[in-house]
Amino acid sequence: MSRFSFNQITAKLWDLPDLVAGCVEAGVDKVALWREPVAEHGLERSARLVRDAGLSVTTLCRSGFFQLPGWYDDNRRAIDEAVALDTSVLVLVSGGLPEGSKDIAGARLHVADAIGQLAPYAAGAGVTLAIEPLHPMYAADRCVINTWDQAMAIAAQHPAGQVGVTVDTYHLWWDDTVLEKIARAGERIAIYQLADWITPLPEGVLTGRGLPGDGCVDMRAFHEAVEKAGYTGPIEVEVMNAGLWERPGREVLDATLTAYRSVF
Amino acid sequence: MSRFSFNQITAKLWDLPDLVAGCVEAGVDKVALWREPVAEHGLERSARLVRDAGLSVTTLCRSGFFQLPGWYDDNRRAIDEAVALDTSVLVLVSGGLPEGSKDIAGARLHVADAIGQLAPYAAGAGVTLAIEPLHPMYAADRCVINTWDQAMAIAAQHPAGQVGVTVDTYHLWWDDTVLEKIARAGERIAIYQLADWITPLPEGVLTGRGLPGDGCVDMRAFHEAVEKAGYTGPIEVEVMNAGLWERPGREVLDATLTAYRSVF
Repeated sequence: MSRFSFNQITAKLWDLPDLVAGCVEAGVDKVALWREPVAEHGLERSARLVRDAGLSVTTLCRSGFFQLPGWYDDNRRAIDEAVALDTSVLVLVSGGLPEGSKDIAGARLHVADAIGQLAPYAAGAGVTLAIEPLHPMYAADRCVINTWDQAMAIAAQHPAGQVGVTVDTYHLWWDDTVLEKIARAGERIAIYQLADWITPLPEGVLTGRGLPGDGCVDMRAFHEAVEKAGYTGPIEVEVMNAGLWERPGREVLDATLTAYRSVF
Repeated sequence: MSRFSFNQITAKLWDLPDLVAGCVEAGVDKVALWREPVAEHGLERSARLVRDAGLSVTTLCRSGFFQLPGWYDDNRRAIDEAVALDTSVLVLVSGGLPEGSKDIAGARLHVADAIGQLAPYAAGAGVTLAIEPLHPMYAADRCVINTWDQAMAIAAQHPAGQVGVTVDTYHLWWDDTVLEKIARAGERIAIYQLADWITPLPEGVLTGRGLPGDGCVDMRAFHEAVEKAGYTGPIEVEVMNAGLWERPGREVLDATLTAYRSVF
């Protein structure tokens, strides 16, 4: 339990103050926050709220979206927000293809270039950019970085600690080569997130993820690989599930804790 | 146009006799057939129908599903059906995880073993087994072979001509390494199928594919790679799309022809 972190999106509709109180009550001392609800509550207020409750923020989710105009300024702001929340990890979802484009190779080069432009600022702020390879089913509309290899190739252009990779079981489980690569990734693992793969996928394929243990991902195999890499940081449970979101926040947190304990 | 083949699933609800007549009328001389509608019309009757119309059958879709009990006998039957239809290519969709399993590595080993068991019978029948890597979003429930590399690794255990790989743009387009690998695949390319990637994906992610040109796949880049490999065989358009299926078969064929011409 000492490594568990509750990712805010798992209880998307839970107000931040209630979420913070619920975590404290449940003995959870780590959370991952999302930019939108933080902005809604106010950045400084959110930072004070979690700090006063004795919670630490494992990651800020999420920045990136490099296909959009204004990506540079928006990502600089996200780095500033990470600093304000006293978290050292900013998760990057790199964005899909520009509207109407068929040039995925070009989009991928742009992502590498954009991260190169942001890395010095992030490094100065003490924030690690955690490139998240998203499942290939998101390649068109959410993220053109879809494999461990792609994310590592970009990260490798920068010092470890400045640019790393997000291990998310949901996005990577299908890859027959990924476990051995994770095991060799050492300090490139910036954060480790759990969600399970369940079917059928819902329309839009965004909100049909399972709590750890509910699907077909071999969580123990992932965990072994991450341990072999020497990663000892927080383990976030990050599950987007429309059914889960309908339940009261505290119930979601409890279900998440039960699921987490069941796989470790 | 001389390489175009109309894959029956694109007009799923079109009766086989109407489909055959429609193809002849439109000047299309190649079709890919599916096992279920062929069985419904009768195997010998279907074979006679297409033969008498002067059509050739580019592939029989599809066998595999190695996670099911009875896979061996069913795949032998599929090979016999391919022979009856006078096609030399049987497309293999390798099947998902067995019910309740989290052992995807084990499932993949089983697929390789199963294909090894079938290859001699297929070779004796003059039928090439065309392993189809399916998009990683189908890894759990439809096919544990999800990348070009996985399919090629299995095919490479057998002589070319006995076991090959299906190039389907829909399943492979996201892979940043695939085009160069296809270009080097030579005679391992057993069949080449076109469908485009459009979003949002529908529930179940099966029936939301686009006609070539309607989505974000760079069809010209794929075509270049397949040409470099030296493949000169048929080009099937195989699109599963719920909206398309609601239209009259002849309209679907015409739309498919227009789409095909637009990308070449």
